[in-house]
Amino acid sequence: MSDLDQQSINTIRLLAVDAVAAANSGHPGAPMGLAPAAHALWKKMNFDPKDTKWINRDRFVLSNGHACALLYALLVLYGFDLTVEDLKQFRQLHSKTPGHPEVLDVPGVEVTTGPLGQGISNAVGLAIAQAQFAATYNKPDFPISNSYTYAFLGDGCLQEGVSSEASSLAGHLQLGNLIAFWDDNKISIDGSTNVSFTEDVVARYKAYDWHVLEVANGDSDIEAISKAIDEAKKVTNKPTLIRLTTTIGFGSLNQGTHGVHGAPLKADDIKQVKEKWGFNPEEKFAIPSAVAESYAAQVKKNQKVHEEWNSLFAAYKEKYPELGAEVQRRLDGKLPENWADSLPTYTPADPAVATRKLSETVLSKITAVVPEIIGGSADLTPSNLTRTPGAIDFQPPSTGLGEYSGRYIRYGVREHAMGSIMNGIHAFGANYKNYGGTFLNFVSYAAGAVRLAALSHHAVTWVATHDSIGLGEDGPTHQPIETLAHFRATPNIAVWRPADGNETSAAYKSAIESTTTPHILALTRQNLPQLEGSSIEKASKGGYTLVKQEKPDVIIVASGSEVALAVDAVKVLEGSGIKAGVVSLPDHHTFDSQPLEYRLSVLPDGVPILSVEVMSTFGWSKYSHEQFGLNRFGASGKASDLFKYFGFTPEGVADKAIKTVEFYKGKSVLSPLTKAF
Amino acid sequence: MSDLDQQSINTIRLLAVDAVAAANSGHPGAPMGLAPAAHALWKKMNFDPKDTKWINRDRFVLSNGHACALLYALLVLYGFDLTVEDLKQFRQLHSKTPGHPEVLDVPGVEVTTGPLGQGISNAVGLAIAQAQFAATYNKPDFPISNSYTYAFLGDGCLQEGVSSEASSLAGHLQLGNLIAFWDDNKISIDGSTNVSFTEDVVARYKAYDWHVLEVANGDSDIEAISKAIDEAKKVTNKPTLIRLTTTIGFGSLNQGTHGVHGAPLKADDIKQVKEKWGFNPEEKFAIPSAVAESYAAQVKKNQKVHEEWNSLFAAYKEKYPELGAEVQRRLDGKLPENWADSLPTYTPADPAVATRKLSETVLSKITAVVPEIIGGSADLTPSNLTRTPGAIDFQPPSTGLGEYSGRYIRYGVREHAMGSIMNGIHAFGANYKNYGGTFLNFVSYAAGAVRLAALSHHAVTWVATHDSIGLGEDGPTHQPIETLAHFRATPNIAVWRPADGNETSAAYKSAIESTTTPHILALTRQNLPQLEGSSIEKASKGGYTLVKQEKPDVIIVASGSEVALAVDAVKVLEGSGIKAGVVSLPDHHTFDSQPLEYRLSVLPDGVPILSVEVMSTFGWSKYSHEQFGLNRFGASGKASDLFKYFGFTPEGVADKAIKTVEFYKGKSVLSPLTKAF
Repeated sequence: MSDLDQQSINTIRLLAVDAVAAANSGHPGAPMGLAPAAHALWKKMNFDPKDTKWINRDRFVLSNGHACALLYALLVLYGFDLTVEDLKQFRQLHSKTPGHPEVLDVPGVEVTTGPLGQGISNAVGLAIAQAQFAATYNKPDFPISNSYTYAFLGDGCLQEGVSSEASSLAGHLQLGNLIAFWDDNKISIDGSTNVSFTEDVVARYKAYDWHVLEVANGDSDIEAISKAIDEAKKVTNKPTLIRLTTTIGFGSLNQGTHGVHGAPLKADDIKQVKEKWGFNPEEKFAIPSAVAESYAAQVKKNQKVHEEWNSLFAAYKEKYPELGAEVQRRLDGKLPENWADSLPTYTPADPAVATRKLSETVLSKITAVVPEIIGGSADLTPSNLTRTPGAIDFQPPSTGLGEYSGRYIRYGVREHAMGSIMNGIHAFGANYKNYGGTFLNFVSYAAGAVRLAALSHHAVTWVATHDSIGLGEDGPTHQPIETLAHFRATPNIAVWRPADGNETSAAYKSAIESTTTPHILALTRQNLPQLEGSSIEKASKGGYTLVKQEKPDVIIVASGSEVALAVDAVKVLEGSGIKAGVVSLPDHHTFDSQPLEYRLSVLPDGVPILSVEVMSTFGWSKYSHEQFGLNRFGASGKASDLFKYFGFTPEGVADKAIKTVEFYKGKSVLSPLTKAF
Repeated sequence: MSDLDQQSINTIRLLAVDAVAAANSGHPGAPMGLAPAAHALWKKMNFDPKDTKWINRDRFVLSNGHACALLYALLVLYGFDLTVEDLKQFRQLHSKTPGHPEVLDVPGVEVTTGPLGQGISNAVGLAIAQAQFAATYNKPDFPISNSYTYAFLGDGCLQEGVSSEASSLAGHLQLGNLIAFWDDNKISIDGSTNVSFTEDVVARYKAYDWHVLEVANGDSDIEAISKAIDEAKKVTNKPTLIRLTTTIGFGSLNQGTHGVHGAPLKADDIKQVKEKWGFNPEEKFAIPSAVAESYAAQVKKNQKVHEEWNSLFAAYKEKYPELGAEVQRRLDGKLPENWADSLPTYTPADPAVATRKLSETVLSKITAVVPEIIGGSADLTPSNLTRTPGAIDFQPPSTGLGEYSGRYIRYGVREHAMGSIMNGIHAFGANYKNYGGTFLNFVSYAAGAVRLAALSHHAVTWVATHDSIGLGEDGPTHQPIETLAHFRATPNIAVWRPADGNETSAAYKSAIESTTTPHILALTRQNLPQLEGSSIEKASKGGYTLVKQEKPDVIIVASGSEVALAVDAVKVLEGSGIKAGVVSLPDHHTFDSQPLEYRLSVLPDGVPILSVEVMSTFGWSKYSHEQFGLNRFGASGKASDLFKYFGFTPEGVADKAIKTVEFYKGKSVLSPLTKAF
């Protein structure tokens, strides 16, 4: 390699070393080992540091996110909105250089990584989105989308099951636009990978039908790395894994050991490595001018590519005005005008229907008018009812099973990968609104991905059917108890549990309009009646008074299948001379965002409140004084038998309401929303 | 195969068909396809239907748990405590034949399965336990443990990441005592596996270093199946995967389609298949007498093997009285006498120490006296501090890295598999007390396995360090916010968050003594002082008054690192003339099990209560009137900066306490524990 290349690579390495040393915290080893590959790769990537959202940029995902000092060094050198001053603040509160790459904090970061296995799975999502976008909008001579997704990953990412799931699917989907680099440095936190990770990764990825290449000397053979990238691009019907043999902490006195994995280099070690590479050992965060100039020159070239694309897209809009306008609308992040008019509404005269079935109806209406809605299921299509009539599968055309422009994704039994891939599809941009179906209970398999959606503001939608003991015979292994509490306790997740058709439409309205909040829609297997008094508008507040009473003795607040039960209990209570109001609370998150005045109008001071939901009561004391729920696992049996056995009948609810009224008689009652601070 | 074999297999198939038809719910396809393999395998297995806990039985795991009608049919035919009458109650409330195999409900079921991928991963745990037990106690001529673990799994199990993780580890560990059958029927719920699962499974398992065999005709070639089992046993240093090509729903008019996967056969279909196989189409749940006699004869043979083992073990106890007594104690489920005396105790004079470090001290003390404690970490050993001095790794001796009698397991970066494997180790019996370490935040990756531990009463222990923003620089991707709420909302999980050394010892005491409740120990990265007033005895109640006040103005209830903060806040509040008590609540689950009288003595009526915990406040209104927590994601920065920024300082807590006192002044205050029902 040229001296300039070598100097550039060493600059990257030392910026990372200095950042970690300044923080006295972080991971220098992987950045030192991966700097050559990063340097070689970024030279070939199309991107514009001044427009990080350019739709046809190549994406770079650092799946081993703990190596973020590497990424931050690149972003600085390439003139993103990140400076050496930011590097000096590495891992400090309020800095733009947090301890793992955060998409919301660092300009140029594509997805938040750190939890291992997520990044490579996000990359599969990015590649799916690019393929779908390209197949939908590219025209002969107008390749408006032809970008690549690149990922770096370490041994840890390869060990995580989520990456196995995503990689298997990527091979099936023949994603030639995905190129991943495995940093084969043979070191993990416990020491040598020999202690637990001795499988044949190359053979495994070949088994997934990936194209696998090997670079024997990732420490200095950037020609080989560069050639491997070219080879990878030639294979257009397979994702590529490039096995890169590297030395963790290359240059350090402790190179090749786990001593350089997660701790700063010692001062004398930094000194020797700087001297060895011809850097001034007294200087920190040095960027030789030749290095700076060479990166600046490349940025200029890149920006020219971006300008050419701008011209191409302008011509495209002229030649294909309708499609061009649609693409532009999507790039502007706008939904089709009046799309929400397609949401179905219901009256109590309409028949009782399961909310999973109502969800299918919504999906069939809105996918017809919103082309950016795509989705799938983790092998539960006939149960989740997520595939709309006439849908085309997203499949490699060669399989004869679909097209890349298809909008229905067969995820297989891979909930966790589905979650990470959904996040990646959202991260692609182009206003993608993507959903994935599974049973509510198995969203937990994907908890790692759901959490990252919330943290990274990926507005994806989980169509989570079979949402309670109401699923019946499959029994407690399938019946969620803690699931809603789990996700309600997570910041920035809207957990909707609609009670009827209007509320189901409201849930989708919230999901599709959101740009920053993931949604989980908990839907029933069993039929629910259309409620008197529900509407999209009311439900859109997250909670509202469904049965209004003047001076009620008690308010019953419920969600989903228990709302109709509460309404029936009201009638039973009338017989006992008790006036009960009913509040439907389909989504805590949305309700919490309403003004206190509104919330207090729904759950006012002075009235005892009973919550009813057939799962864990945990957290319901936030909205109620007394809680009726299921603080045990369910059971296998007919749904109707289960509801009866656990007391979820109009009479059972009425009984709890009576006890609530009696207990609070004569006591002064504050709304649970009335707080000290 | 013999006519009797054929008739036996068809009997199994039709029992399953009739059970599903009677329930009008369930999965007939896999039982019909797998009956030949089950018949061939169970003929070779050692087990005693009258002693389902016999330690040297072969274990059978049905990882595709939805095929449970197959398993139930076998249990009936082999004379377990399950009858045809039970089969008639398939999937009904209170039956012994629930919709998925439940270890607590069905005699003969080894582990609860249904959530895909778990069973095969449990099987890896069973195999690890057997290998460790055998290596620890077997003596020349006294092979008191030489059993096998067998598993059936379907395409769904193979797609789940958890099984990839567990299979990779099983290959590394060279578990020759594990033999798995892949039901390669090419059908999943979405239809053909072609739509999403086209990887080369055989090549993948070879890449994991498994021994792979193929049986081309799993529908009728039981000789080949039988031979494959013999071949598998010959390879003692690799687990074996037997690829079994079968026809789902074999015999049905819809065989080979997903129509037979999850719905009962239609009446005319049942009729034709019974006629075809020479059964009376009018008769249900038929067991031809020749079939019944042949299974009964085999049971007799099996029981003889069991008796021989009893003699062997008796002789073992004579020859090795000390070891024999230890094995007997473990089989009796008793801990060593006075083991708990080894738990360390502390006084306020002792230095401040991180609870993860205190955990290491406990582990080093108790592993020395309790041989059945084994454990490991998901590649975070130096962070979790889970490996005690002088520990020997559980490794194949050929690797030179350890021994099969080793008690420390290198799980690799595989949290979900670790969870399932831990459950499997517990399911083995022999009083295994096993733990696994990871960061608290990444226990969520294993949510599927943790839930099954709770449901199945696997008393395993998660050593979950880095339990809050106190981990500092790694930032929000690593800082748990919702994690405690998630697991507190799950039935039957003890979620301990000890505040100091005595509480850490109490947490371990609870974990080790439990036989039915999984424990999650949330431990700090940062140092915490030894508290005045804590003790193992007090903490063992789950919650107790740490700072007692006569007529307090406010009680601050906290857990873990916030307890010392609350104590410091008391001093600040004294300055403002406010008397504050402090309650330490290390484990909700244990506290909830105390008598109401005790609980009310800790959180009494008449005093406003403020909870303080640096994570989601969700659920804390169960124990407090006002909540101070962190209902947002954390941030990357020094731990001390973060605590300050988010207001978790003595002054910050005091401020919330003052607001609480002022708000409740003049209001009558009921304890949150005082409820209407």
